[in-house]
Amino acid sequence: MARIYNFSAGPSILPLQALEEAAEKMVDYEGSGMSLVEMSHRGKIYDSVHSETISLTRELLNIPEDYDILLLQGGATLQFGMVPMSFLKEGMTADYVVTGSWAKKALNDGKLIGKVNVAWDGKENNYTTIPDAKDLNLTKDAAYIHICSNETIGGIQWQDFPKTDAPLIADMSSEIMSRPLPWDKLDMVYAGAQKNLAPSGMALIIMKKSLLEKARTDIPAYLQYATHAEANSLYNTPPTFSIWMANLTFKWIKSIGGMAEIEKRRDEKAKLLYDAIDGSNGYYRSPVDAKSRSKMNMVWRLPSEDLEAAFIKEADKEGLSGLKGHRSVGGIRASVYNAMPKEGIVTLVDFMTKFMEKNG
Amino acid sequence: MARIYNFSAGPSILPLQALEEAAEKMVDYEGSGMSLVEMSHRGKIYDSVHSETISLTRELLNIPEDYDILLLQGGATLQFGMVPMSFLKEGMTADYVVTGSWAKKALNDGKLIGKVNVAWDGKENNYTTIPDAKDLNLTKDAAYIHICSNETIGGIQWQDFPKTDAPLIADMSSEIMSRPLPWDKLDMVYAGAQKNLAPSGMALIIMKKSLLEKARTDIPAYLQYATHAEANSLYNTPPTFSIWMANLTFKWIKSIGGMAEIEKRRDEKAKLLYDAIDGSNGYYRSPVDAKSRSKMNMVWRLPSEDLEAAFIKEADKEGLSGLKGHRSVGGIRASVYNAMPKEGIVTLVDFMTKFMEKNG
Repeated sequence: MARIYNFSAGPSILPLQALEEAAEKMVDYEGSGMSLVEMSHRGKIYDSVHSETISLTRELLNIPEDYDILLLQGGATLQFGMVPMSFLKEGMTADYVVTGSWAKKALNDGKLIGKVNVAWDGKENNYTTIPDAKDLNLTKDAAYIHICSNETIGGIQWQDFPKTDAPLIADMSSEIMSRPLPWDKLDMVYAGAQKNLAPSGMALIIMKKSLLEKARTDIPAYLQYATHAEANSLYNTPPTFSIWMANLTFKWIKSIGGMAEIEKRRDEKAKLLYDAIDGSNGYYRSPVDAKSRSKMNMVWRLPSEDLEAAFIKEADKEGLSGLKGHRSVGGIRASVYNAMPKEGIVTLVDFMTKFMEKNG
Repeated sequence: MARIYNFSAGPSILPLQALEEAAEKMVDYEGSGMSLVEMSHRGKIYDSVHSETISLTRELLNIPEDYDILLLQGGATLQFGMVPMSFLKEGMTADYVVTGSWAKKALNDGKLIGKVNVAWDGKENNYTTIPDAKDLNLTKDAAYIHICSNETIGGIQWQDFPKTDAPLIADMSSEIMSRPLPWDKLDMVYAGAQKNLAPSGMALIIMKKSLLEKARTDIPAYLQYATHAEANSLYNTPPTFSIWMANLTFKWIKSIGGMAEIEKRRDEKAKLLYDAIDGSNGYYRSPVDAKSRSKMNMVWRLPSEDLEAAFIKEADKEGLSGLKGHRSVGGIRASVYNAMPKEGIVTLVDFMTKFMEKNG
């Protein structure tokens, strides 16, 4: 069995040891005579995995005690709706910063619920840059300010976060757990699991208790944040496999040195790849603003679409998979999530050099 | 490794061969060099599993072409909210038949959205019976009539379904795929996966297209049924592991003979257990109306709570796990889902006989 290098944007590469442990214990979980995914979510064994996953989240991201940690279903997509349903009440306005496709999806759900203000829109530059804090047109007493911290399709990322008066809510699906987070600036963070955390089927929500207390409680039970906060995310049956895999992923992160080491590796991998792009004399070209470049999803172009197609095809043959850019923008995209080893980037950069020599 | 007999109400026993196949392919899916749960949900390999799962659902349950099949997240609990949000519009009334805890949860979400009518409530008899169709107090031109076809906690089940004028919507979480379904009577069926289908994290929704067309489209994207119907349940990242496991479970069902064989086995297993209860001269006592007895979740009492506690403890030592009744009602409960082999029931009945001899 040869593991390939999987640069898919999500679902995406997972730590090998997490997959191996899941395989080993799939039929008989630690001598219990059944799989963890066959067990009652009210039982001791599952509960210990569940609770440990939540406490590892708190430990790794250094989350203050006045934040709740929730593990829900529906991915970030359901959060696009739950956020305005909970917080965008009659007479209020919510600010949305539109940096690309994902931010826009959140905005669209907000519009269906109440009054929204587009605080900034990157359309003019084809969503290739992140705004400066001073350029945001914020509403006084906004219900919240919504941002997408990393745009998977456009390949741009907020390098730091503005300090805002209204609660700042960030969709961090494609970068969660890749760097330490500044809790003095963030009131709510949410993320689908299927990039840096676990297989799909779970969303991680981290929310300041003072914000959660403002959430509406006259909406269906599953859509109320309080339902899940009060029940430690066990109000209904949780997505046990995704949570188990997040548990194994978090243990792997902890074993290598936590967020500090993860961030260091992220920066190293991103530098290797951007240096290869920048050192190619324009053969490889990053379409995004240099200061906004994502360290998770790197996008670049080749001199022609034919060459891009050839690049993707040949890379795939070399075990470098999932490099095709999103269909809405084209080009090349390498999603370099936590579980991607440095060797994957070294192999990719080596391939890029050879491809350029052959086709330059 | 000794597999135990797992009578847990959910999450619950899964077909052994499905677990074994998942274990075998967890790290490298059929020579692809990665796990299925690491793959893009837009790629060919995942898509073939996804589409096959939907077509197997249609084939096994003989679902007519004018019904859509959706695979969502949030379990049945999110459906409690999505149903009234979609169909209980201003000026309309929805009928709810309250047969126990689960039907009541659906009712509670309905109340938050609009006007509801309790068409029948089994509270008087402590939720031990299913009503006759003639006893339902239905609203003329109701938005829909909601029932829970099998109450996991109370251990009662609708043996057949009323033919109603308004759309009949059934929560079938704890019995889906245990018998053929009469599509001339059912307009919508929904079910959490974690009993008869797959590990938790997925809900199966089967809905008549003419009903789906009536659903509101001015609510957040994830909460609109049309979003998922138009995208073949690939609008956002689906819960890939649960869907893969449902695929393997459905193949197992097909391999043994489909719904006819599943129903035959269900009836055999239920008869063995109820015969043991009825033949115990009152030592074991079923608290529910004989005609309403569930064939999935069998509940019974012993002469005292002390004996019940001893029964559960000793059974557990014999590898008969998860027999404790729900905390809200006490007693004994055996959840006998599709994957429970007949040998599990034979072993349980044998244990019951011996326990009675020793403690009778």
